[in-house]
Amino acid sequence: MSYRPSLTVESCNKNVLRAKYAVRGAVPQRAYELESKLRAGEKLPFSEVIYCNIGNPQQLNQHPITFFRQVMSLAMNPDLLENPKTVELFPQDAIERARDIVRRTPGGLGAYSHSMGLEFIREDVAAFLNDRDGHPADKNTIFLTNGASPGVQTILQCLIRDHNDGIMIPIPQYPLYSGTIDLLGGSILPYHLTEETGWQLEMTRLVEALADARSKGLTPRALCVINPGNPTGSCLSEESMLEVMRFCKREHIFLLADEVYQTNIYQLAKPFVSFRKVLLDNPELEGLELASFHSCSKGFLGECGIRGGYFQLENVDASIRAELYKLASLFLCPNLVGQVMVDLMVKPPRGTPSAEHYEQEKRAILDSLQRRARKLSQCLNRLQGVSCQVVEGAMYAFPKITIPQRACEEAKRRGQSPDLFYCMSMIDEAGICVVPGSGFGQVDGTFHYRTTILPPEDKFDIVMERMTAFHNSFLARYQ
Amino acid sequence: MSYRPSLTVESCNKNVLRAKYAVRGAVPQRAYELESKLRAGEKLPFSEVIYCNIGNPQQLNQHPITFFRQVMSLAMNPDLLENPKTVELFPQDAIERARDIVRRTPGGLGAYSHSMGLEFIREDVAAFLNDRDGHPADKNTIFLTNGASPGVQTILQCLIRDHNDGIMIPIPQYPLYSGTIDLLGGSILPYHLTEETGWQLEMTRLVEALADARSKGLTPRALCVINPGNPTGSCLSEESMLEVMRFCKREHIFLLADEVYQTNIYQLAKPFVSFRKVLLDNPELEGLELASFHSCSKGFLGECGIRGGYFQLENVDASIRAELYKLASLFLCPNLVGQVMVDLMVKPPRGTPSAEHYEQEKRAILDSLQRRARKLSQCLNRLQGVSCQVVEGAMYAFPKITIPQRACEEAKRRGQSPDLFYCMSMIDEAGICVVPGSGFGQVDGTFHYRTTILPPEDKFDIVMERMTAFHNSFLARYQ
Repeated sequence: MSYRPSLTVESCNKNVLRAKYAVRGAVPQRAYELESKLRAGEKLPFSEVIYCNIGNPQQLNQHPITFFRQVMSLAMNPDLLENPKTVELFPQDAIERARDIVRRTPGGLGAYSHSMGLEFIREDVAAFLNDRDGHPADKNTIFLTNGASPGVQTILQCLIRDHNDGIMIPIPQYPLYSGTIDLLGGSILPYHLTEETGWQLEMTRLVEALADARSKGLTPRALCVINPGNPTGSCLSEESMLEVMRFCKREHIFLLADEVYQTNIYQLAKPFVSFRKVLLDNPELEGLELASFHSCSKGFLGECGIRGGYFQLENVDASIRAELYKLASLFLCPNLVGQVMVDLMVKPPRGTPSAEHYEQEKRAILDSLQRRARKLSQCLNRLQGVSCQVVEGAMYAFPKITIPQRACEEAKRRGQSPDLFYCMSMIDEAGICVVPGSGFGQVDGTFHYRTTILPPEDKFDIVMERMTAFHNSFLARYQ
Repeated sequence: MSYRPSLTVESCNKNVLRAKYAVRGAVPQRAYELESKLRAGEKLPFSEVIYCNIGNPQQLNQHPITFFRQVMSLAMNPDLLENPKTVELFPQDAIERARDIVRRTPGGLGAYSHSMGLEFIREDVAAFLNDRDGHPADKNTIFLTNGASPGVQTILQCLIRDHNDGIMIPIPQYPLYSGTIDLLGGSILPYHLTEETGWQLEMTRLVEALADARSKGLTPRALCVINPGNPTGSCLSEESMLEVMRFCKREHIFLLADEVYQTNIYQLAKPFVSFRKVLLDNPELEGLELASFHSCSKGFLGECGIRGGYFQLENVDASIRAELYKLASLFLCPNLVGQVMVDLMVKPPRGTPSAEHYEQEKRAILDSLQRRARKLSQCLNRLQGVSCQVVEGAMYAFPKITIPQRACEEAKRRGQSPDLFYCMSMIDEAGICVVPGSGFGQVDGTFHYRTTILPPEDKFDIVMERMTAFHNSFLARYQ
């Protein structure tokens, strides 16, 4: 008789089974398969798969910031700092910055650091926050992390005791939130953003969601806001932020501010303002607990693979900061390269020879993202049955698509939701990988998908053409 | 009235509060404080704090492997690969290896990879396992991770459903295990290693621990073995491993093999043999589920700060591998620098110009660790009331100390356990930071501490002298 495994889906932690993460779900799996086929020489209706499922700029040929990589390259190999020939390959200010980093990093990049991250980097983050918000920050409220996601998990781990504890999240949302809440055994408390007004956050929706949760005996412990929005591409007004924070204070709720897209702003009416600034500008909000998240993966850096990020706490009880430190210690420390990338992000070159090139690279990437954001929403809005809100910030569009009745029936036959069927058809026919709206949440009976704005400009028109041709042929088939 | 925070220890997840991690606990905190005082010019009985609390070789001046850092430095800054002057600073084989890595990494080190890690690196790990064990490995059973610790957490997350699920762990153990089990709300099922026989694993202890767990209505889901042992420094015989695996198969228990110290072996009688090899060599064990962990942080690399590691699964159900993939996806991917460091670890230079220097560096570090391991246990065994087992492998000694009655009374007055009081006295008086045995577990009424063998050889005698002088003065005071 063959051995029966002890660990199967039947005997697995049910919270693990419950958690979902669509950004790497069925459609990307299909994309990988098709890419393998292309590599194996198989003939498909397209010559290349284009990944618009994930905010991964360097995968789509965005060049990293030159100065940052020069410094990292030197800090990784400090023997170079002793070599007189190094000046022929690296600019002097990169050498000096690397020397400074190595000097201030006990044991270098190969040693575990303090579990919250290197002290000098937390000081540099604090200085950045002071510059940005006009309010000093305490380095002991800053935790460096492997990208933003583990920080979100760590804080939710403290907040969620059991399924009676709920976390309010926007719908649509980035599925890190729903996935982590499920994994930790908490309850998801959805509040809907209003698509018609550009995915704005309306207070009535928060009030309803809260009342609904309490009527079910659930305890809302925290409210999560993503600004600029993922997947919506919308930006919050300062007035709206103030209302949200008043709500949190009144209802005794912890605020989680996902601000990883803070430099991805493509309009002038709503410049980025941090929740931290609004909190500290308004004495009426005194005491409100806030955790803000930032990352090297987005903005104009796009250093996703490096896994660098941080979170910062305001008004969080010292005893909880001690618990967060203990949890960080259990996993020793965030990776040192990610920590140094955070340092470069918050303290870029200024007034040194590399500063000008840095500013040029930064501007070129952000301007290009702005052009692509506009082009994408314009293109989508020209399609029959498709409407797309203005992409004000972040890296995504979340268009609404009307799916013909006969296509819905075909989807049902295949055991797929209509939006999944649409996205599966798009990858199969056009080689473009996007994520169905169901992975982010949407009003019942409506369908969306999320696409990034990241294909490079020299391919952008081709992507738009392929999306358009696919959409028209899909409609022609099922209308 | 001032705002009362919503998240305090009273309202925090109790599993978070329960989790402990002594390696960065009270004694290291005290060490940081003393180090600050020294920096501020204060006069203390020592001029430098020496950290023996954590296996962090580069913090104590171990030089990273030159070739690995050269390759990483180039892969981090691929512009160098196009520059004709690069050959003046880097050996040709490092340039070629970096070029190969960059070519096979879609988007380079700044792009998210596949959530399980880059495919070519998983293939290289599979080839390494085949060479090591004489049995081919499947790349789809390999997950790259940010060091070994997150892999342990991910698998325990699947295994532990609630407090009725228990994980068998050795006592003494590395507190990642107890901490993570507490955090996930499971039950710790301790089995004691036998100090008198060099911390060997005896079957009667496993049988007793299992019976004890079942008598309490608990379900033992997995057994964890650390080989070479942390904190014990002991190595398992192949016979002992076979017995353990028979036990696991008979009792329908998942085996977790922590083998991060597999290259840290300081004797010839018990060379490292992997649990995977024993499993696949013995048909009677067919079907037994095994997860093995490895890391770049230990061995002769000591690349702790890079956070690279992997786990590999044998006989684990495909449905569970799919769940593990989903969990990995939720946090996007392990950091790419750590992934590449794993690649360098499993595929070092061979037959190229840098190979000889690599072998020299490797040999020098391992030989030096062996000398230090011997010197440390010899020194400790010379102290009155101290006994230390032979350090056969890993990076630690775990001496037993007899603490005089009057010292135990003084500890009690201070609200400290006797071993904590001893270690606190050692940091205060000798500036040497070690971890009390209570952080790892010990037989009631016995006291130990864990110290690493890592202080560099040119300081090792000073550390031994300071430890000896401290111990003698402690005894003189309290005997």
